[in-house]
Amino acid sequence: MSEFGDAARGGLSPAQLENVLRDVGAARYHNRHPFHHQMTSGALSKGQMQAWALNRYAYQSVIPRKDAAIIMRSDDPAFRAEWRKRIEDHDGGDGWSGGIARWLKLATGLGLDAGMVKSEKFVLPGTRFAVGAYLSYCTNRTMLEAVASSLTELFSPVIIGERVPAMLAKYDYITADILAYFDKRPALASRDSDFALAYVMKHADNAEKQQSVIDALVFKCDVLWAMLDALAHAYGEKGNIPPGAFVPEAI
Amino acid sequence: MSEFGDAARGGLSPAQLENVLRDVGAARYHNRHPFHHQMTSGALSKGQMQAWALNRYAYQSVIPRKDAAIIMRSDDPAFRAEWRKRIEDHDGGDGWSGGIARWLKLATGLGLDAGMVKSEKFVLPGTRFAVGAYLSYCTNRTMLEAVASSLTELFSPVIIGERVPAMLAKYDYITADILAYFDKRPALASRDSDFALAYVMKHADNAEKQQSVIDALVFKCDVLWAMLDALAHAYGEKGNIPPGAFVPEAI
Repeated sequence: MSEFGDAARGGLSPAQLENVLRDVGAARYHNRHPFHHQMTSGALSKGQMQAWALNRYAYQSVIPRKDAAIIMRSDDPAFRAEWRKRIEDHDGGDGWSGGIARWLKLATGLGLDAGMVKSEKFVLPGTRFAVGAYLSYCTNRTMLEAVASSLTELFSPVIIGERVPAMLAKYDYITADILAYFDKRPALASRDSDFALAYVMKHADNAEKQQSVIDALVFKCDVLWAMLDALAHAYGEKGNIPPGAFVPEAI
Repeated sequence: MSEFGDAARGGLSPAQLENVLRDVGAARYHNRHPFHHQMTSGALSKGQMQAWALNRYAYQSVIPRKDAAIIMRSDDPAFRAEWRKRIEDHDGGDGWSGGIARWLKLATGLGLDAGMVKSEKFVLPGTRFAVGAYLSYCTNRTMLEAVASSLTELFSPVIIGERVPAMLAKYDYITADILAYFDKRPALASRDSDFALAYVMKHADNAEKQQSVIDALVFKCDVLWAMLDALAHAYGEKGNIPPGAFVPEAI
């Protein structure tokens, strides 16, 4: 499937499997993407930053549905209770007091209208299709692959650690309060990735299943990378915004 | 949903609905995309042309599955018999004597290895996700929307009429025999679009259904446009090929 398409040949120990997964992250996680480098070096325009937040919102808004798709497929009440925490984190008690609401706060803190952001009407088709691919994947693939696709959370504390200080330092219109989403995420991501990794280690008990786990993480990295590619193409210097998508006041 | 998101307000006559659908094509069909203009003006490198063929193959290879998803949902034997022609056109009698085989011939005629093309291993994630979105759409949305999403075939004779002469005239490594896929398509596309348009006119009998038909065509145009955006970004001058994707010998 990818350059990691043979990595489980012969079967791996749990430690070896974890090493391969971390190698996938080191090679493919979206903190290696040029758009992220532009963000952390202070090179994004406000319009590009707005476009990033608008499109990320569309990804975040699907996460509870993705997690519900995984819960739907589990006949283990303890697994369901643990995985349900992810939905609680994103929706909060009333739907609008969790991570999604904090992403909305980030987008509006950057100057976007809340109704426009929530409508998702001006999101890039490339974003929509990547997000839809993630939802379909977790609905249609094996349980093991669906759980494994969440393992990018192994790496999200690193990218948050790069992104937040850079955003605060290099963009004078960004304040700590609009970045509230990221305060809580590293701890939650570690809790989530610990659980998912333990599940994967327990259930990926042959080479074929281990390869499916590796492929699932590569797939998820493809989703995140494709979203940044779509942003970079649409809102880059040459400005190839597809018809119908968000047009910033100034790129 | 889009700038056409209100076009059916109050309800339309069949002629008015057809006019709106043709307006969508005029505004959004991918013969307006910069990559298509580069192709027809002779500006693509051979590597870019190869990437285009490789990625188009991944779209074409899903068409019979998309059409099977529509057939699966029909309880009308006459509809199923008519729609089945599309699968016959693409797979041929033995799976490899129809349109898909002719796309493979185009890709190999451009110098790509048949096994590599058929594996779809080096296709852009952006292509995969757009193609997957089309398959999901035809599986999960209403029958009317699934049929309506095929109506880009109203416009495909035009783009084929632009593309084929330009490819023959401006690229000396392209010969008529490798473009055999396009010889038959205009007649088949017209047969298919006549049937789909008649179905849509018959069944879209209120404003809400008419809007869903318009939105379906916009969605399909988004799919085709997003595939060219992904190609343009990955294989353009700045060469942002995502990890794992096809690398031409020379861009």
